[in-house]
Amino acid sequence: MTEANQSDSNEDSLTPLDQVSNLLRRYRLVDGLIHLQNDSSDEALADSAVQKQNLAELQHYLDQLHPADIAVILEALPLDDRLLIWSMVRTENDGEVLLETSDAVRETLITDMHSHELVAATEFLNADEIADLAPDLPQEVIDDVFRSLPVEEREQLRAAMSYTEGSVGALMDFDVITIREDVRLEVVLRYLRRFEELPDHTDQLFVVDREEQLQGVLLISQLLVSDPEMLVAEIMTKEMIKLCPDDVAQQAASAFERYDLVSASVVDATGKLLGRVTVDTVIDFIRAKAENEALNLAGLSEEEDLFASVFQSVRNRWVWLAINLVTAFVASRVIGLFEDSIEKLVALAALMPIIAGIGGNSGNQTITMIVRAMALDQIQRRSAWKLLAKEVGVSVINGILWGTVVGIFTFAMYHDPELGLVMMLAMLLNLVLAALLGVLIPLTLRKFGRDPALGSSVMITAVTDSGGFFIFLSLATFFLL
Amino acid sequence: MTEANQSDSNEDSLTPLDQVSNLLRRYRLVDGLIHLQNDSSDEALADSAVQKQNLAELQHYLDQLHPADIAVILEALPLDDRLLIWSMVRTENDGEVLLETSDAVRETLITDMHSHELVAATEFLNADEIADLAPDLPQEVIDDVFRSLPVEEREQLRAAMSYTEGSVGALMDFDVITIREDVRLEVVLRYLRRFEELPDHTDQLFVVDREEQLQGVLLISQLLVSDPEMLVAEIMTKEMIKLCPDDVAQQAASAFERYDLVSASVVDATGKLLGRVTVDTVIDFIRAKAENEALNLAGLSEEEDLFASVFQSVRNRWVWLAINLVTAFVASRVIGLFEDSIEKLVALAALMPIIAGIGGNSGNQTITMIVRAMALDQIQRRSAWKLLAKEVGVSVINGILWGTVVGIFTFAMYHDPELGLVMMLAMLLNLVLAALLGVLIPLTLRKFGRDPALGSSVMITAVTDSGGFFIFLSLATFFLL
Repeated sequence: MTEANQSDSNEDSLTPLDQVSNLLRRYRLVDGLIHLQNDSSDEALADSAVQKQNLAELQHYLDQLHPADIAVILEALPLDDRLLIWSMVRTENDGEVLLETSDAVRETLITDMHSHELVAATEFLNADEIADLAPDLPQEVIDDVFRSLPVEEREQLRAAMSYTEGSVGALMDFDVITIREDVRLEVVLRYLRRFEELPDHTDQLFVVDREEQLQGVLLISQLLVSDPEMLVAEIMTKEMIKLCPDDVAQQAASAFERYDLVSASVVDATGKLLGRVTVDTVIDFIRAKAENEALNLAGLSEEEDLFASVFQSVRNRWVWLAINLVTAFVASRVIGLFEDSIEKLVALAALMPIIAGIGGNSGNQTITMIVRAMALDQIQRRSAWKLLAKEVGVSVINGILWGTVVGIFTFAMYHDPELGLVMMLAMLLNLVLAALLGVLIPLTLRKFGRDPALGSSVMITAVTDSGGFFIFLSLATFFLL
Repeated sequence: MTEANQSDSNEDSLTPLDQVSNLLRRYRLVDGLIHLQNDSSDEALADSAVQKQNLAELQHYLDQLHPADIAVILEALPLDDRLLIWSMVRTENDGEVLLETSDAVRETLITDMHSHELVAATEFLNADEIADLAPDLPQEVIDDVFRSLPVEEREQLRAAMSYTEGSVGALMDFDVITIREDVRLEVVLRYLRRFEELPDHTDQLFVVDREEQLQGVLLISQLLVSDPEMLVAEIMTKEMIKLCPDDVAQQAASAFERYDLVSASVVDATGKLLGRVTVDTVIDFIRAKAENEALNLAGLSEEEDLFASVFQSVRNRWVWLAINLVTAFVASRVIGLFEDSIEKLVALAALMPIIAGIGGNSGNQTITMIVRAMALDQIQRRSAWKLLAKEVGVSVINGILWGTVVGIFTFAMYHDPELGLVMMLAMLLNLVLAALLGVLIPLTLRKFGRDPALGSSVMITAVTDSGGFFIFLSLATFFLL
């Protein structure tokens, strides 16, 4: 692993992206000049020599970079620049870079590659890494890769590809070092010296019996501080985290967070060691999850390539806009019911968005609290009632508080005390509605086995909009007209 | 570190929280009975014997749990149950549990403790951990702790407390093992055996000279596979991540994500080794950051104790509601400008929320894309124009598409083709406005050194609301009346 020396790159204060961009700009400028000139002129010849120099410099710079840095650069470049840089990445880095890029950007890179290039790229990857790429690879490439693998790895790839996304199996790798419990630590140390290098994130060795049943783990830190004459069985840990490949990945992530793990074993139902999960994969998972939640909340179906075509972006965004349009139509029809009232008292039209807006904001506060607590498994049947009571209590206080503010505002604007009172009452009722549904919507979604985070913000806003309009306009119709 | 055996707890399928809740319920039930009875009756005596048994069982179960699990349980319990359980946690676990709980819950626990209990709890913590708790501790406790520490740790605590929140220094610990470069690996191995245990997450030893200048790192995995006769200088790595204590913490997090680190060195400006950052701290940081963003987006100022009092919750939520109220008042006044038009054509009142709503949704899609790309440092001056053009392109297509849909809907409702055309045009214009500001708001916030994530969603919604009402109502006034 070549690691960038961070303090050095701070000193000249240019990120790798800046560096590559500058080199690219120089290249593109000269390229433009060459096309303007007569091909055989002396200037053109001189320029193309300069051009070769530019490309060599760019190549030299790229060769030094970590694949993860190259991935960041590719994601930040428009398509033409991206593909130029991609063509210059060394084949042995291709696979790593593909693993590091987002799905959308990876697609643009793979589309640009020949089958034989893709097969070559996978040669530098492990079975579990190939499995991560597999969904984006053409079938013929996967077939080729399968044929080229040794038997053991072929089995591993088959296993890795069989786990569903979002399961522990999908996070698992096969880079485990196993030992027996009846050997001395000295033997273990000698055994390790026969490796050229240890797998990344090896903080423990897995102790198995002849049937590959996991018996315990030998922590590297224990191995280092213990007397080499001792037996593995004497110092190995039997209390350890065992994950199952079919568990949801979030369960593994929670275990890593809570118990500060670097790696954890994965075993099948009989206790046979299948592989391990490492902390770097878990970090990627946590990040991807947080990002997806943020994207969904904003109404984006999936991560979008920053430089995706306009058409692709429209496709990625249409679902939530369509849902939003339906809820907006419903709210519009609710208002339509009261057109007579509005005609008589046109101030209602100007005031009603206030009630709907604050209700939506308050409902989103409640729902965010509840969804978060549910994600942390903190809500039990008994405490649900307490929470509902608390949220309704908060909404009553807020309703009286902000209801008074808007009531006074309304009175100041329209000099109509009754209109002010209706505003206050409508605010109070809509906030209580928001609190009730802010608790009930996520609980109901979970009861029906749905992800409470997905779409609950849209639902609460829909309810507080339509509900707010209805509450306010019907109160006004009843008391004022 | 005692780790829960996860597969066992799966088998009986009860989480630690469920177990504790069940034991607690039993305890509370009998407690209720005792209070109902005459104190000296035989039943009361029998019950209090049962009660002792219940408490002993609860105590026994709690003693086995990992501090992180206890923290989760405390967060999920209402205040009275929480404090009962907290009083039963063993003193040597108190500090760890306090570190694991959220700020809000920690406050409830610390309020319930005497000074001497707090001082006792810190005795089991390192200097960097005490520094993490310090902001929540009374000054007298901090003074006591200072006096009780040995000189070296006192200096470390002083240093750790001097770093601002959100800096690398705040994530740093002092558990580094240092070695010299001119010794053989065999000597290093013997040196390590003198430790009783290695600090958690020791994946590398730090090679320093006599002035504590960091020369390189010796990876444990390299140490294990190399010939013990070799010198440290021969196999140590000189290319490594060096963090500075005053860097923003996000920079450390990015380095850990990109380069899959377990630990990284922290050095001062002269290159002197100060400490290290480990992956478990980084995971906590990443999670807390993602959570804060989600909370802010929903209008919560900070993490809130699930069972906070109603009054505390109102205080935590009022800022964003107040901001929202101001933007709603502005939108209301915009509508107020057009009360004459609405009086003449009351359908406008029912239709205007559609324009505002879809604009807000579309603007949030754009702003989420841009803020995310900015967080990943993917937006350069040159590409900003490309992005603006793309977003406007998307909004034009969406505007024509959804504009046509709402136009047809409007025509179907009100049988007025001109009103349909105005809806279509207003939708198109408001989506273009949303796209322009969805790109410009975060870029502008960054230009003025503000966090582009904070409040940009509120701002875009405010603009698309007021802007949408203005565009629609002025078009209608101009073309229809």
